[in-house]
Amino acid sequence: MLANVRVVLVNTSLPANIGATARAMKTMGITDLCLVEPKVFPSAEATALASGASELLATARVVATLEEAVAGCSLVLGASARSRTIPWPLMDARQAGEAVRLESDTQQVALVFGREDRGLTNEELQRCNFHVCIPSDEGYGVLNVAAAVQVLCYEVRMAHLLAAEQPLPDAQKMPVQFLRWDEEVVPHGDMERFYGHFEQMMVDTGFLAPDNPRQLMARARRLFGRVRLDRIEYNMWRGIFTRLQEIAAELNALKKPKE
Amino acid sequence: MLANVRVVLVNTSLPANIGATARAMKTMGITDLCLVEPKVFPSAEATALASGASELLATARVVATLEEAVAGCSLVLGASARSRTIPWPLMDARQAGEAVRLESDTQQVALVFGREDRGLTNEELQRCNFHVCIPSDEGYGVLNVAAAVQVLCYEVRMAHLLAAEQPLPDAQKMPVQFLRWDEEVVPHGDMERFYGHFEQMMVDTGFLAPDNPRQLMARARRLFGRVRLDRIEYNMWRGIFTRLQEIAAELNALKKPKE
Repeated sequence: MLANVRVVLVNTSLPANIGATARAMKTMGITDLCLVEPKVFPSAEATALASGASELLATARVVATLEEAVAGCSLVLGASARSRTIPWPLMDARQAGEAVRLESDTQQVALVFGREDRGLTNEELQRCNFHVCIPSDEGYGVLNVAAAVQVLCYEVRMAHLLAAEQPLPDAQKMPVQFLRWDEEVVPHGDMERFYGHFEQMMVDTGFLAPDNPRQLMARARRLFGRVRLDRIEYNMWRGIFTRLQEIAAELNALKKPKE
Repeated sequence: MLANVRVVLVNTSLPANIGATARAMKTMGITDLCLVEPKVFPSAEATALASGASELLATARVVATLEEAVAGCSLVLGASARSRTIPWPLMDARQAGEAVRLESDTQQVALVFGREDRGLTNEELQRCNFHVCIPSDEGYGVLNVAAAVQVLCYEVRMAHLLAAEQPLPDAQKMPVQFLRWDEEVVPHGDMERFYGHFEQMMVDTGFLAPDNPRQLMARARRLFGRVRLDRIEYNMWRGIFTRLQEIAAELNALKKPKE
């Protein structure tokens, strides 16, 4: 279905943005790139920025008009940062991902991105069924064009994965509980002291051989990192470690041959 | 709350990626940048790529270790493309956005991104509470570091906006219906012929003065673009336009003074 999704760049000035766009698309499994009158293409800089996605540049179509680029598409979405004189039906990026997913099942879809400095013209935007905005900071809302491609292609991919109920393919996914808590969660620096204390305690008690630590500390970090201690729990555990060290020291003292 | 969100770049090689990261952050309203041993910083290239976000570079902290970068953070999330020898609690980018939203309400959060070529080391990843993956194509999953920053900061911003129930601030948002349909939706090229036909009909019938078109065609495009015609509707409307043109032609013929 992602094969039915086309990215269209209109009048791109910088070859680096074309290359970065190819890479952004390929990471999300989208490969159909169409360039409307790029300033410079092909170019070594675009190929360098495309990294492992240079074959997208090799197969990209270059056309003279937006019309040609979106021919055959039943749904055309235009990225737009500004609101226009005539308000146009507007989706945010997430809605766009869902709309593209539904449509690309059976028909061809285009995501259209404008010039670095001026975006799409009103005439071009009026050739789109919907405008898409990426919600951004009011004071500074101008995403780089390849960054905008990355976000929209990401939302298209997420919509597909969520519909297939596999947002994390091949990954072990743990249920995450983020409860609001009455106590402060202990910050990172304290936790480093915690791990240092834990490790020393494990050495003192003879469980951990410093020359053969295996994965013990990694597993400890994973566990405590996941549960995230609050201040009371933290103090409790530090107290436990200290007590265990005292016992180990006592034991060692007793086992020493009496002088 | 976004003020409690910190982006940490570890050992970044290319100044362009630092600049692009600053821009990506600022578009999403996140401004706290910390650089762990960047190869080159400050640099003119980073500033150029940061575009309007160069003040983030001016206020960025440069530190020697990841420890310093995440000091004081109660939640540390590490971006990771690969699964590791020891599986770690994993979130996808969307879960991460929600987790950061909940935490950054009251406490400090860090999003950590690794080297261009090798990402984060196992040791660095083990200093993170959770790993975050951006679901990507199995065959080619390597996002550019600034692109990964863009996606994660976008998800953090979306989580905030959705929680405040304002995903599209200041924008007119229309309910969008994407129903599965029994008939083909008419593709773009046919719709261009449709608009051409519609416009000619409006001229023929005297509604539209070619020298003073106002916003008529823009409004027509907006309307039909939104509803999206299927083939049967399309044929029906084309038939209507033709019939109206015939009437206009007949009328004109009758109004002409008889010869």
